[in-house]
Amino acid sequence: MKKRIEKISAWLKRQNADLAFIHSPHSVFYLSGFMCNPHERLMGIFVFPEANPLLVCPRLEEENARQSGWAHQILAYDDAENPWERIREQLVRCSVGEGAVVAVEKDHLSVARAEQLQQVIPRMELCPVDEYLNELRVLKDETEIAILQKAAKLADEAVAVGIDALKPGITEMEVVAEIELAMKKKGVQAMSFATTVLFGEKSALPHGTPGLRPLKRGELVLFDLGVVVDGYCSDITRTVAFGPIDEKQKEIYHTVLEAETAAIAACKPGVRLGDLDLVARRVIEEAGYGQYFTHRLGHGLGIDVHEFPSIHQANDQVLQAGMVFTIEPGIYLPGSGGVRIEDDVVITEEGCQVLTHYPKELIQL
Amino acid sequence: MKKRIEKISAWLKRQNADLAFIHSPHSVFYLSGFMCNPHERLMGIFVFPEANPLLVCPRLEEENARQSGWAHQILAYDDAENPWERIREQLVRCSVGEGAVVAVEKDHLSVARAEQLQQVIPRMELCPVDEYLNELRVLKDETEIAILQKAAKLADEAVAVGIDALKPGITEMEVVAEIELAMKKKGVQAMSFATTVLFGEKSALPHGTPGLRPLKRGELVLFDLGVVVDGYCSDITRTVAFGPIDEKQKEIYHTVLEAETAAIAACKPGVRLGDLDLVARRVIEEAGYGQYFTHRLGHGLGIDVHEFPSIHQANDQVLQAGMVFTIEPGIYLPGSGGVRIEDDVVITEEGCQVLTHYPKELIQL
Repeated sequence: MKKRIEKISAWLKRQNADLAFIHSPHSVFYLSGFMCNPHERLMGIFVFPEANPLLVCPRLEEENARQSGWAHQILAYDDAENPWERIREQLVRCSVGEGAVVAVEKDHLSVARAEQLQQVIPRMELCPVDEYLNELRVLKDETEIAILQKAAKLADEAVAVGIDALKPGITEMEVVAEIELAMKKKGVQAMSFATTVLFGEKSALPHGTPGLRPLKRGELVLFDLGVVVDGYCSDITRTVAFGPIDEKQKEIYHTVLEAETAAIAACKPGVRLGDLDLVARRVIEEAGYGQYFTHRLGHGLGIDVHEFPSIHQANDQVLQAGMVFTIEPGIYLPGSGGVRIEDDVVITEEGCQVLTHYPKELIQL
Repeated sequence: MKKRIEKISAWLKRQNADLAFIHSPHSVFYLSGFMCNPHERLMGIFVFPEANPLLVCPRLEEENARQSGWAHQILAYDDAENPWERIREQLVRCSVGEGAVVAVEKDHLSVARAEQLQQVIPRMELCPVDEYLNELRVLKDETEIAILQKAAKLADEAVAVGIDALKPGITEMEVVAEIELAMKKKGVQAMSFATTVLFGEKSALPHGTPGLRPLKRGELVLFDLGVVVDGYCSDITRTVAFGPIDEKQKEIYHTVLEAETAAIAACKPGVRLGDLDLVARRVIEEAGYGQYFTHRLGHGLGIDVHEFPSIHQANDQVLQAGMVFTIEPGIYLPGSGGVRIEDDVVITEEGCQVLTHYPKELIQL
């Protein structure tokens, strides 16, 4: 954790930048171990090329920040107080003045916050730190991979709970509740995103939301879920048949599985990310379902459930050991049903390791 | 819904602005009925003074947008496609060119998105639409209040489920799970925020997170939770005693209750918001616990669980009929325990109506 701040400081020197203001909750967590959603309140870390960093947070988060291990200065402010005046004083002490070059997360910093910063540092020049943070975050270290493994294992268990819960008449929401209850009993504090369980024709909505629809025999059931463990996310999708399904549904299942397996087999350092998408996409196109695979192959996974790298066909970056992402092709037949199969993979020196292990052969209950 | 877009169009005319780009998911929902978290993807509504509005969204959300009732044009794009080129063409058709005045949500628009917009509209001038959107959203109409009432009623029920679940040895997370299971069975798709159940000394952390701590007799138990119903949030806090508690804990309970009741009694149109905070704060200060009430009195409630107005002592705005917000004083004794009591209130022509109804007299189990 300490090293990460040091890396930012060294990067600031290389960029001839005077400071960084890093404020997105997940980046703050990455640099400090302190996870906090400040809602509309100001929170962030000022990093300097030489001086010690400074954490700004609402007073009522100060204790949490300390308990998370933040050992540097904290500027804690009350709700009725404007923190920017005190920030100005601190910056003056660090010799930050007019015209300073400030590295910020341009993808996250709001125009309003940038204007507040501008008032404290007149004529400041903004430079983006996003890419450098992504470069750091995209390569997971051993500790992070161990956590992601734990998160993936719990996702496997969550799918098993969901499949066990299926019975005629149960609703999508009840299955979601059973899954989340089992996870909470294991101490899981949050799911990576709203747990998705979709029955029948609803499985054809890639971002459909569960409701009170009861399960009938002969329907596809799609589970898309993940858990957060120590700040890191897992993300798995499995599709099963509840009772007999028709030949066309079996065909799309096997096509998606073939596409997913082919993409995993292609994972190794040096491969172009866009080509991974194309490997899977070609399998689906050749089977005649190209138009029904309506999204990219996958997305990076870590502190964010969607982070870099993005696995879409136009991405010219290449795979590197330590990258962690999802592979999740799908075929969605409107009105009939959809199949998606998703695993989490980590790129290794030789190829890749799949973190999620729930079986993928077609399960017919 | 249609009227809301028309109001934005009329406002644009009054401001001599050429268009608005409104992109925060909750504002998009407010204007369209379409709720979508696009993650890092671009989504937003372009509103014009005269022309029809345009919704930009990822292809895989197009169907959801239509089903939500969006009747105007949709510009849907694929993951491998850059939507800005097509936006540029659309804007040219609407006669938006260089130097246009663009109203944006400055509190939400990222510097990076603003730069993308800048490339499509060279030398654009940004003006903030945040305040006007807040002005619209801060006054809830009858439909919204009816939904908020439903959400508050479910929050009452959720507290009852949590209190029923208490028994020696049960963990905070298990109680959270019981509450959320009960809500899901009623079709609740999301909680307003991570359900909080805190035992004993943890109740003194205003933003503590539930864990695997088992419940013991003689401890305070704090519930802070809410549910989302049709896109609108509730938010309630109750603190109960599990078994006998000491005199000091009883004293802080009664002090918080007195402060909360006094603030509710002071609610009526025309009252300064900051004074509401002060009414409650004085009760707590006079009892000698001022330093342990470490946050503002409350926050607006609606599509966001924290929205305008903010009820802190420096807020000079005045209460108006239709405002909905929380009143939630607390006293937190570090290492010992905390008490917070929170209700949702709507300002009426004569005074206020409290939406949450779970009893507030000290419950000792």
